[in-house]
Amino acid sequence: MTVIGTSSQWKIIAAKKRKDLANSIPAEWRVPEHLLPPDSQDDVTSWPETSGWFTPEELAITSLSAEELVPQLAQGKLTSEQVTRAFCKRACAAHQLVNCLSETLFERALETAKARDEHLARTGKVVGPLHGLPISLKDNFNLKGRDSTVGFASLVGEPSKIDSALPQLLEAAGAVVFVKTNVPTAMMIAESVNNVFGRTLNPRNRKTTSGGSSGGESALITFKGSCLGIGTDIGGSLRIPAACTGIFTIRPSFGRFPGRDCRSGMPGQEAVQSVNGPLARTLSDIIMYSSAVVNSQPWLRDPKCVPIPWRAVELPAKLNIGVMWNDGIVVPTAPVSRALRETVAKLRAAGHNVTDWDPKDQAEGTLLLKRMFLADGGKTIRHELRRTGEPWREEMYDYSVAEELGTADMWKLHLERTAFQNTYLDRWNASNLDAILCPTTAYSTTQHGSFRHVGYTGVFNVLDYPAVSFPSGFTVDKDMDVDGADYRPLSDDCSIIHASYDGELLHGQPINLQLVARRLEEEKALAITKAILEL
Amino acid sequence: MTVIGTSSQWKIIAAKKRKDLANSIPAEWRVPEHLLPPDSQDDVTSWPETSGWFTPEELAITSLSAEELVPQLAQGKLTSEQVTRAFCKRACAAHQLVNCLSETLFERALETAKARDEHLARTGKVVGPLHGLPISLKDNFNLKGRDSTVGFASLVGEPSKIDSALPQLLEAAGAVVFVKTNVPTAMMIAESVNNVFGRTLNPRNRKTTSGGSSGGESALITFKGSCLGIGTDIGGSLRIPAACTGIFTIRPSFGRFPGRDCRSGMPGQEAVQSVNGPLARTLSDIIMYSSAVVNSQPWLRDPKCVPIPWRAVELPAKLNIGVMWNDGIVVPTAPVSRALRETVAKLRAAGHNVTDWDPKDQAEGTLLLKRMFLADGGKTIRHELRRTGEPWREEMYDYSVAEELGTADMWKLHLERTAFQNTYLDRWNASNLDAILCPTTAYSTTQHGSFRHVGYTGVFNVLDYPAVSFPSGFTVDKDMDVDGADYRPLSDDCSIIHASYDGELLHGQPINLQLVARRLEEEKALAITKAILEL
Repeated sequence: MTVIGTSSQWKIIAAKKRKDLANSIPAEWRVPEHLLPPDSQDDVTSWPETSGWFTPEELAITSLSAEELVPQLAQGKLTSEQVTRAFCKRACAAHQLVNCLSETLFERALETAKARDEHLARTGKVVGPLHGLPISLKDNFNLKGRDSTVGFASLVGEPSKIDSALPQLLEAAGAVVFVKTNVPTAMMIAESVNNVFGRTLNPRNRKTTSGGSSGGESALITFKGSCLGIGTDIGGSLRIPAACTGIFTIRPSFGRFPGRDCRSGMPGQEAVQSVNGPLARTLSDIIMYSSAVVNSQPWLRDPKCVPIPWRAVELPAKLNIGVMWNDGIVVPTAPVSRALRETVAKLRAAGHNVTDWDPKDQAEGTLLLKRMFLADGGKTIRHELRRTGEPWREEMYDYSVAEELGTADMWKLHLERTAFQNTYLDRWNASNLDAILCPTTAYSTTQHGSFRHVGYTGVFNVLDYPAVSFPSGFTVDKDMDVDGADYRPLSDDCSIIHASYDGELLHGQPINLQLVARRLEEEKALAITKAILEL
Repeated sequence: MTVIGTSSQWKIIAAKKRKDLANSIPAEWRVPEHLLPPDSQDDVTSWPETSGWFTPEELAITSLSAEELVPQLAQGKLTSEQVTRAFCKRACAAHQLVNCLSETLFERALETAKARDEHLARTGKVVGPLHGLPISLKDNFNLKGRDSTVGFASLVGEPSKIDSALPQLLEAAGAVVFVKTNVPTAMMIAESVNNVFGRTLNPRNRKTTSGGSSGGESALITFKGSCLGIGTDIGGSLRIPAACTGIFTIRPSFGRFPGRDCRSGMPGQEAVQSVNGPLARTLSDIIMYSSAVVNSQPWLRDPKCVPIPWRAVELPAKLNIGVMWNDGIVVPTAPVSRALRETVAKLRAAGHNVTDWDPKDQAEGTLLLKRMFLADGGKTIRHELRRTGEPWREEMYDYSVAEELGTADMWKLHLERTAFQNTYLDRWNASNLDAILCPTTAYSTTQHGSFRHVGYTGVFNVLDYPAVSFPSGFTVDKDMDVDGADYRPLSDDCSIIHASYDGELLHGQPINLQLVARRLEEEKALAITKAILEL
């Protein structure tokens, strides 16, 4: 039943939900007040090591990558319970410092972990390739008996009856799901802020955003509250959070990983498809996860998955890379441009062929994405807001004033999108590219509330190309990274973004880049990224 | 520019187009009046052999399958020109007897054929796996400089500027495109009739339909005016014509064969995807064609294709087949039910496991398909009709009175369709099926204007499962094939269909069945069909 909300109803619901979440943290995992870093402390990533609140064993475990943990779990050198407890505790700290969780699943996680340990002890065998490994999930993965609010007050207290296909698959592969993480309203803002849980902060600098919409994940992983987490991406929602925090992700093509039975911010919107993918601190973890999921034959669980096994890929000795220096709309801020220049220099020095990729299609692709998002006139989101009187966030202004298309006009929009996909493929073929290298966003990260322009990521959603967001190895240098005298803004957004750039604030932050391959070439996108990082 | 038509404008356009088409047949390929069979002659399939109008060589060539022609063309035992001329001539006869063409491409075809012969003579090598082979195309494949009217008067005289991706691929593989074939208006009727070209007749019995919407193709191939033709299917448009004429086809899953740059009857409609596939007189031809197309890497030409090579398939010794005796809406007519019973008996005798497949999902799937087709309120089709004052055909009544959905409601419909796909997959998994065996339609074929109910095919479009329509080897027997005393109609359609069944009229007609596999398992669907035919 649809309830027309009063202006206060959503606030009451949200406050109770936040309180329930805080209360779900057991006393042993609540950071004592006196140990908490002061609000003025921007970088809290080293707090676990310096606070004295963690045992050396907990710190050692949570510093390992998934790829390091998996064999130790499989050999019984670490128990799943031990590993799960360590990550639960660190995730609780992360939440208290950067507000990154939406649901805690500690009871389920510890039960599962114990069952893993028992299975290994009894049979001498692992349950699957992810045996005993704790994995965090973005809020929109449904888990039985738990909310998936995706930031709407209206969806608080409507627990799911089922698990989404992906957590089912992960648990069948041996994994342990232990927390869900915060998102922006409807997962349609590039920062992670909503009216229920509030704002997630970037643990590397709490004055900056961890990105969105998978920004609860990126914050948690950067804090080492999880070694491997799963987010989703419909316009950059995996790649932007990875970029804002300096970790790895891949936005796969649609159908590679199972998306069945997840909560969507705009359910039934299909003109551009949402996909899910892993976030982690190492590229190896991304590859390990991706092969494990695909080799679990997700097409047997989700009718939208394609039966393509994880394939070995052999790269040509000389890669043919198109570099997109800017997208014709927004020049990247100085550190991003420098990271791109330096990476291209390394590619050229290694003998690879790097040519400029003309960004002439970007404006059209970016606009197509926006039109597809707004095609229902914001009705679907408005419906959820109205149920509790929840107001539109200002970041979602475009949705609040959008006009609905009829189906006949929507069909015409599909044709425009398909024509765009055709043209792009033809251009790609004409250049015989192996990949495009470009910014993930115009930013390394940025101050809360200032993120603009998702064009660098969104066009590849329109195209459904796999795209890796990876830390380039370069970090912001406040002295080197200033716009040159030749900088000319390409648009109002460009001016605003460059005006908001603050080298002092961002000094030392990691800078991500984006590597894009042909549709359904996830293996190749990851292999080329690996090759670049090894230069 | 949109022109509001007068009531006569479309008639003038259509009459001229028909005349132009007739005139495009060179004098040498016009059947002399006195040799034409009388209108009262129902079966004209033997006319080429009995008329004396063809040379023995022409008859010999046109009686070969694609699989037989390809090696002879590759070895230079037959020239492409010789083969193409023979098929052009026989296609012209077919058109004069059953009205199956929409465009003739003789000049282009003969030039291409000569170039193939010249290439082979010069290099000793074939151009590709379909070297020199004439292939016919459904009207909606665009070819430079030629119309693709899909039955609309408004689209007459709007020649395409490009070739669709599929004919490009086929010509690159060595094929010779030589005619395009008739369809119903917008390709949305299960018989091939429109206001421009009129009605295509079934060469096996001209009182009956060759099916639709790829019914120009099925008529042409059945008459041996083509050995291999390409149609499309969004609700049964390959499988129904194959069934009505007793030939083979496969409706592949979306993304296996390239559909780029084709004319659509409802452009931009994507909730259920149109696909194209081959029609031929032998299963081997279907397999040869499918592997040739997929191994040409169509994903490099069409961004919607999936990079899955043609895969070898090993069938289990004991197949697990679900048999759907009826779809809960329409009981198949007596010959179809008998062909299904006999085929199941053979499967069981060979030791395969055959269980009943409950048709409980069929009504929902059939209704979903209809709702998706009608979602634009018929606007897209109405627009084309209005441009020349062309009237709605009575077969399209539902479109003429449909109400348009807004995008928000369309998104909800997508969710219903996805839920349907999920449930179906779960049921399939629970039964661990290799395939479903069922009718292709309730009919063998039927009198013009009487075809009803596309539920047997359409549900598999909603699911995007590959489905083979194949002649079972059984033919209608007017004495055996009568409804038993236990027949009870399941619906009004069921009553009407059974009332219209005419054993005298259909006596001797082939009876097709349908074999359905999991999504993107085209190889397996064909392999199981082969196994059934070898029982």
